Amino acid sequence: MSENSANQPMIGAIEAGGTKMVCAVGRSWREVRDAEKFVVPTTTPDETMATVMDWFAAQHESTPLAAIGVASFGPIDFATNSIAPSTPKEAWRGVSWRDAITARFDSIAIGFDTDTNAAGLAEWSWGAAQRRRVAVYVTIGTGIGGGLIVDGEPLHGLLHPEFGHMFVPRQRGDEFPGTCPTHGDCLEGLACGLAVNRRWNRTGDQFAPEHAAWELESDYLALAMVNIIMIASPEVIVLGGGVMRVDGLLDKVRVKTRDLVAGYIAKDVLTSKIEAYVVSPGLGSSSGVVGAYALGARADAVAK
Amino acid sequence: MSENSANQPMIGAIEAGGTKMVCAVGRSWREVRDAEKFVVPTTTPDETMATVMDWFAAQHESTPLAAIGVASFGPIDFATNSIAPSTPKEAWRGVSWRDAITARFDSIAIGFDTDTNAAGLAEWSWGAAQRRRVAVYVTIGTGIGGGLIVDGEPLHGLLHPEFGHMFVPRQRGDEFPGTCPTHGDCLEGLACGLAVNRRWNRTGDQFAPEHAAWELESDYLALAMVNIIMIASPEVIVLGGGVMRVDGLLDKVRVKTRDLVAGYIAKDVLTSKIEAYVVSPGLGSSSGVVGAYALGARADAVAK
Repeated sequence: MSENSANQPMIGAIEAGGTKMVCAVGRSWREVRDAEKFVVPTTTPDETMATVMDWFAAQHESTPLAAIGVASFGPIDFATNSIAPSTPKEAWRGVSWRDAITARFDSIAIGFDTDTNAAGLAEWSWGAAQRRRVAVYVTIGTGIGGGLIVDGEPLHGLLHPEFGHMFVPRQRGDEFPGTCPTHGDCLEGLACGLAVNRRWNRTGDQFAPEHAAWELESDYLALAMVNIIMIASPEVIVLGGGVMRVDGLLDKVRVKTRDLVAGYIAKDVLTSKIEAYVVSPGLGSSSGVVGAYALGARADAVAK
Repeated sequence: MSENSANQPMIGAIEAGGTKMVCAVGRSWREVRDAEKFVVPTTTPDETMATVMDWFAAQHESTPLAAIGVASFGPIDFATNSIAPSTPKEAWRGVSWRDAITARFDSIAIGFDTDTNAAGLAEWSWGAAQRRRVAVYVTIGTGIGGGLIVDGEPLHGLLHPEFGHMFVPRQRGDEFPGTCPTHGDCLEGLACGLAVNRRWNRTGDQFAPEHAAWELESDYLALAMVNIIMIASPEVIVLGGGVMRVDGLLDKVRVKTRDLVAGYIAKDVLTSKIEAYVVSPGLGSSSGVVGAYALGARADAVAK
């Protein structure tokens, strides 16, 4: 992409998370990354969307937006372009970003995908997964989610990858029942940020990197990495989210992933160069909002 | 495809399995499915390949072959188009079908992929997964393998999907150590045909469908289905291989898969219509050799 973005269309970007909405506008991914963000807490759909749309309408008045990209928490039903009825956020079931945007903006292109597919697309486009044929982005935060990018396109099959709700072997001695309201001890139930806090009756801020929590956490995450490798065969796995900021955790996951694969896939990146395979996001914590920009820019390009 | 294949190029097809090679020629997938097969036991590469190539050379003399498609046991290294060094079949490490074919045939197109990606391609083209955006084929036989088809193309990332070597939770009371020489109790180690026989000290032919073996087997296979759903989000999973011929096993896997997903993905095919989601191969036991035909036909089309 040209460094000179003055002639590029202005794109609105919404990272619609379960706890907050992060909004920005820009003419390039760099502008969006560096822009001052408008942040709105996620409450009811009516309240949150009105505040978000008011802000984009004001931006639109000063510089017309060509498109808005929405990177939304899920699950998402692409058949109706709405938040799926199985989302734990009851008030948001069936809510359509597309309807909300078209109600306020005439003839604007709209891009829409999961927050994690969008983040994966951003990492594939400008971050740590550039030009890989198959790339995975996984975020370990309050929950666990992910996106799968095949030949530059976020994968949509029956729905979209979930990642968080796969099942992995429980580690010996871990009797924690799990936090997933649906599955109990699926990966998310055992290893999301919420699960770590509940298992140890602490909050993330209090955990020292030496705490036993992180040995167990890296055990579970490494098992998840192996399952992703064996099912999707990605060329890189980008591992983001708040939990991954714990000092040393990424390295633990790398070493255990390598040891679990145990040479079965005889590739440098799964043996001596594992640090080039399980990596941090190249866009830091901006993958989501930059991904929303990518969705908007693609929708604009398609519409033209 | 036209029913009249008289004008179509003649394609050679090799399903190169770990125990036997199944060879056929034909001008259409139906001709290959219905053809009398030439079957060679898999022994040493030199011996086996010479026998196979002699047979294709004789076919070629009567009707020139435009292409040969090879659906090979894996793992396969696409960088060198050869059988990967991590295959348990030591004599076959690094063996290249491409080299073997070009040494005997001038200017013939060659298609090459894993047996399971090929079977998936056949099921996507003419079988139970036709035109699905994301389709998975898994075979439960002596081992466990699979293929992932995205928009009609077998997925190749770092390598190719393995499926068999993912990790699933061990079921309570199952102390069997697993048969995988590399991972012990990965899915293949716990649930492949060899594992079933060793765990119960019996052979497959002796097992009644009511035997407890199949409850346990369906537990493990359902967990694998869920992991595949959560990671790759296929629109259909085709479940083939000898183990799946046990009466009632497919239904057990369906019900348990549905119960494990537990409505998290609110789609008919994962709730009330699971029988339309986890399905038997539309091509029966011919998926592999028909897949080899598909690889050959595609290679011929690209070469033209």
